[in-house]
Order: sequence, then C-alpha cells, then structure tokens
Amino acid sequence: MFRQPHPTLERSGDSVRILDQTVLPYRTATVVLHTLANAAHAIRSMQVRGAPLIGATAAFGVALALRHEGGEDEALERALKVLGATRPTAVNLHWALARMDAALRPLPRAARLEAAWAEAEAIRADDATTCDAIGRHGLGLIRELAARRPGPVRLMTHCNAGWLATCGAGTALAPIYAAQAEGIAVEVFVSETRPRNQGLLTAWELRAAGVPHVLIADNAAGLLLMRGEVDMVITGADRIAANGDTANKVGTWLKALAAQAAGVPFYIAAPHSTLDFACADGAAIPIEDRGAAEVCHVRGLTPAGDITELALAPADTRAANPAFDVTPAALIRGIITERGIAPAGELARLYPEHER
Amino acid sequence: MFRQPHPTLERSGDSVRILDQTVLPYRTATVVLHTLANAAHAIRSMQVRGAPLIGATAAFGVALALRHEGGEDEALERALKVLGATRPTAVNLHWALARMDAALRPLPRAARLEAAWAEAEAIRADDATTCDAIGRHGLGLIRELAARRPGPVRLMTHCNAGWLATCGAGTALAPIYAAQAEGIAVEVFVSETRPRNQGLLTAWELRAAGVPHVLIADNAAGLLLMRGEVDMVITGADRIAANGDTANKVGTWLKALAAQAAGVPFYIAAPHSTLDFACADGAAIPIEDRGAAEVCHVRGLTPAGDITELALAPADTRAANPAFDVTPAALIRGIITERGIAPAGELARLYPEHER
Repeated sequence: MFRQPHPTLERSGDSVRILDQTVLPYRTATVVLHTLANAAHAIRSMQVRGAPLIGATAAFGVALALRHEGGEDEALERALKVLGATRPTAVNLHWALARMDAALRPLPRAARLEAAWAEAEAIRADDATTCDAIGRHGLGLIRELAARRPGPVRLMTHCNAGWLATCGAGTALAPIYAAQAEGIAVEVFVSETRPRNQGLLTAWELRAAGVPHVLIADNAAGLLLMRGEVDMVITGADRIAANGDTANKVGTWLKALAAQAAGVPFYIAAPHSTLDFACADGAAIPIEDRGAAEVCHVRGLTPAGDITELALAPADTRAANPAFDVTPAALIRGIITERGIAPAGELARLYPEHER
Repeated sequence: MFRQPHPTLERSGDSVRILDQTVLPYRTATVVLHTLANAAHAIRSMQVRGAPLIGATAAFGVALALRHEGGEDEALERALKVLGATRPTAVNLHWALARMDAALRPLPRAARLEAAWAEAEAIRADDATTCDAIGRHGLGLIRELAARRPGPVRLMTHCNAGWLATCGAGTALAPIYAAQAEGIAVEVFVSETRPRNQGLLTAWELRAAGVPHVLIADNAAGLLLMRGEVDMVITGADRIAANGDTANKVGTWLKALAAQAAGVPFYIAAPHSTLDFACADGAAIPIEDRGAAEVCHVRGLTPAGDITELALAPADTRAANPAFDVTPAALIRGIITERGIAPAGELARLYPEHER
C-alpha cells in the first residue's frame, strides 16, 4: 500500500487533522477541524481539494456536526445540506454524503455519532484501497509503454490528482507511483493549471515522492504533444457521466484534443465514486464558476520566503472563471478505475450494479 | 488612421524612444535606445514585443549602429547579425533586416546613416498603414457576425497582437478597433497567455482604447468555445509558412483545436512581413525555447503598488518553455492580411510576387 509522505486527512481524537493545501507548495502545515463549519470551510476554501479527498472530508464533517449537535434527524439533514452545497461539480461529495446518510439514517439517534466516525473512517480507508487498485490497473499501460522505447516513459497530467487529492496514492498519479515502485523510469510533464496552479501541488508531491518531473505552462501542452515528447496523458476526473463524458479541471479538454490530434493516448483515472450514472452525458454536469478574483491574482513566494498574493490585473477587471470543462467520451482512450480499465462509454460493464 | 494611445516606438533626435513593455500593465514608462546593444537588449528582454514591432525596432537598431560605428560594410553586417540573433521565431525581424540591407548596401558609405533612419521610419509608417488595412478587411467579418445575432460580437484572442505589438492598430485587434470605430458593439475574451501573461497587456490596451473585455485563464478557452459563448477567434502570427501553417504564441493551437471542435471560425491576422514563403510548412519553423525561469516566476503588483516577482516553484524545478506552437492551415478559416482575406493555403494568390 502506498504511504502518503504527509497524511492528507486523519482523525485526531474528536477532531480531524488535514494538510492545509492553501499554503502548499510553500509550507507544510496542518489544520484541525472541530466543527461542521470548519469542514465546510475547508472544502469551500480548498484547504482540502481533489474529488476523493473532498468526499472523505465531507464524511468526517458529518461526524463533527453530530458530535456537537447530537444525532437528531435535523442535525444530520443540516450537515448533509451544508456540506452538499460547498462545491457543485465534484460528485464524490454527494456520493460520500449519500453513503453517510444511508449508514446513519436507519440507526437510533444515540448510535449515530459513533457510526458516523466509523463510516467516515471506512470511506477514507476505502479511498486508499481504491487508489492502490487504480495504480495496479494503470501500471499495465505504463509497462507497455516502457517496453516500446528506451528511456523513461513520458507522461503528462493536468491539475493535481495525486496523493494530495485523495486519502491514498491518488488517481491519475497512482499508476505513476506504482510504476516507480516497480522500478520503471518515468518522467511527468506537469501543467501549471491556472488559475489556481494546482500543477505546483503536483510538482511538489512528485518531488516529495522522488518522481522526476517537468513543469510547463498550460499553453505548452499542445506543442509537446505534437512534437512526440509525450507517451500518454492521464488526468483525474470530477464527474463522469453515464456515456463517459468527463468533467475535470478546466483545460483538460484542450489536452485531450491535442492528444487526439497528436495520436497520443488520453486516459482518465477515477474511482467509482466519481461515476455519475444519473447524468446521461456531459451537458448535464453543472460547471462551477469561481469568480474573477482567482484569475486576477496569483500567489507565490517572495525572495524573503513569505507567501504573498499579487494582483495581475486591476481590481475592476471583468473575468470569467469556469473551474471545469467536459471532455467528450470519444477523446478518452479508457477510464482507469479500481475494477479495471474500460472504454469511456462502457463503464457500466465494470459497474453492472449501477446499470439503469 | 488608428492613433495609438501611447506610441510604441518613435524616433527622438538621434535616438529611439520605446514604450517599455516589461513594466506594463503596471507602469507606463518609456526607454530611450541609444545604441545597437540597447536595441538588441530591448528585443531580447521583450521591452518591445510583437512580431511587427520587433521588426521595426530592429530596423531602427541598424540606424543606431551606423550612427556610432559609421556606414562601413562591417558595421552594417555586424548590426544585421546581432539584431538577427535576438529572437528566433518571428520572421518579421529577418524581413525588416533584409529590407534595411537591401536599401543600404547599394549606397555609398557616407549616405547609409541618413538612409537607415529614413528606411526604418518607412518600415514604421508602413506597419501603421498595414495595420489599418488589416483592420478594414477584418471588419467585414465582424460586421457579418454583428448582423447574425443581437448583442455584442464576442471575439476571443490569445497573447497580444494589438497596437502594443505594432506601430499602428495591431494585427488581430485591428479589426476589433475598426468595428468599435464603426459603432459595432464588441466584447473580447482575453486569455492570460502564461507564462509571460501578454494577455494582461491586451486587457490593458483594450481598456486604454475603451473596448469591453473579459480576462480568462488560458485553460478556460475551451469551455467558453464549447458553450457557444464566442463568435470568432482571432490571433496574430509570428511566422506563416507557404502552406498556411502558422506559428504563434504557444497555446494558439489549443484554441484552434477547440474552435474547430465547437464550430467557431478561427482567423489569423498578419501583415505580409509575417509570411515566409521560404518555409514550406510548420515543421520547418524554428521554435524558441525561453527557459525555465519564466515558468517558475510571475510578476504582479503588491497591495502597496510595487511591481514584484514571486517564485511559483523552487529554483531547481525543471521546466520546459517553448514560446510558440504551430497551428496547421486546416484549422485556420482564413488569414487576414493588408491585401485581403485568403484561405490559409492560398496566400500566394494575394502575394503573387512571392510565388516560387
């Protein structure tokens, strides 16, 4: 099992300790969540981020709510509502909350708090197991690429879908960590992922895990693909519709288009909790708009080592900031899940229990 | 004729005054170039940028060289060599230097300095005229779009190909300024253009000219196109090969791919000096690599109003930074030149004198 260099989420007595991702990659700090409000804030402000980690944090948020407010229906419903409203696109959030609801609702009020802790912990542990399984399945693809030409296998990813985004090895990066563990040489092109620069988190976590990587501006992905400098693109997902259309961090579709034009395979890696069979296709997936401030500002480190935010554009600049885009199933060579790899439109074969 | 809100380049006695684009959009400052070295530095450090403005600056750089070193062949050749080596991708640079060489070489040594000033000024004035002509031709396309649906015509651009990049109205933005002058409502989606954020220059120059605009992260271009929020994409070019393949700021190809997938017309606007009939196709265009530092740093404004550079990633981070990519002719609906609009592969019809 992959061991996270720093735990992203762990129970600590009656509280929950998270790695504060808003100060990464510049500081390694933890935040302790005591209340429902703390958990909701952590998700909304992106102290935790990444669809699987958001789901697990929400699950623990239910336990924190019940701890303070008791196990009444009203408290449970309020927690589900508050946490469910934090981020609109990632379906894992709703999946985790539905799982909590299903586990707790049938229980007597007095038993719900203890059960909430147990179920949240199970969601966390399941996620780690799931990541390892995704890594095992994806490893087969990297092995094939390694056999095809000398030198490291050159992968490209977008945003952060590594251990930082989960409770385990990650999704998109899990196969890469599995390859590294097996001694296969890899090199990862990491796109910056403006406007929030989650690519810098990916570079940080790859460094922490000792994986060679090359940072690029998002714009450079096309040229590198066209030049034949990338063997495979692999990203995570925030929501996968029944037909395989996949919402992921904005910019993913551009990489998928360029990969197709360059003849480079494009894969999505995601756990079952990202699948949304109730969504017929990509057009039904809501896209979060995060506002102008993220586009008009940037955070970095001063020469003195202080984390500072700079304005890139005047405060009254109009900006559009959709956080996700949708990659049509036709551009996706396969979806790597914990049950194996399926063509994007044939996920129901791996998950017959969801077939409608 | 379009009047630049701030002149990008003008002769000032025996020197040349340029708008210093390295402190834009935060300060409006000028720099005076006295020597060949000043001119070469201005191009290399991107105090001037944009293919047409680079060409004009190089032309004036020849005059500055001859002023100090006299009109001997050695001085002329050295100037052409030094200036020709400043930026590898923009062909206007070589076009302008070849034009200077052709004008000066046949003259007696003593007549060359005065002729150099005159020829450089002619290149500058021709560029302004060329920009206006591009604007007139592109205006027809915007008029058609304006007639098709109510509300402003929604254009998307990449990098900066406006008045800041030229000695006149710009290339990609010239039709937009022409539309505005005619009273057609327009709105411009401006992509940030990491790693050097030339989109912020575009936002600044559109604001200076009173044109409504919306800033976006480069990654967001795809979603906006897919959603039908853009009527036309129009960018400049750094070099156009004989078959119409076009090198422009890295990330342009990604927009062209998304525009095609979304059924949105994609146009290039460029003067004849950008055409390189000696380059058979895009594969023959050299792509400048600008090094890791640009990717790992960002410049912006502190709350106190100071221009500061922050580190985004540790100094030893590996980064790839190709500055341009190549958009294949098949993705380009047309190329808007000062002689009219041609399909990307049929430029020779507009420029029969270049036919080989």
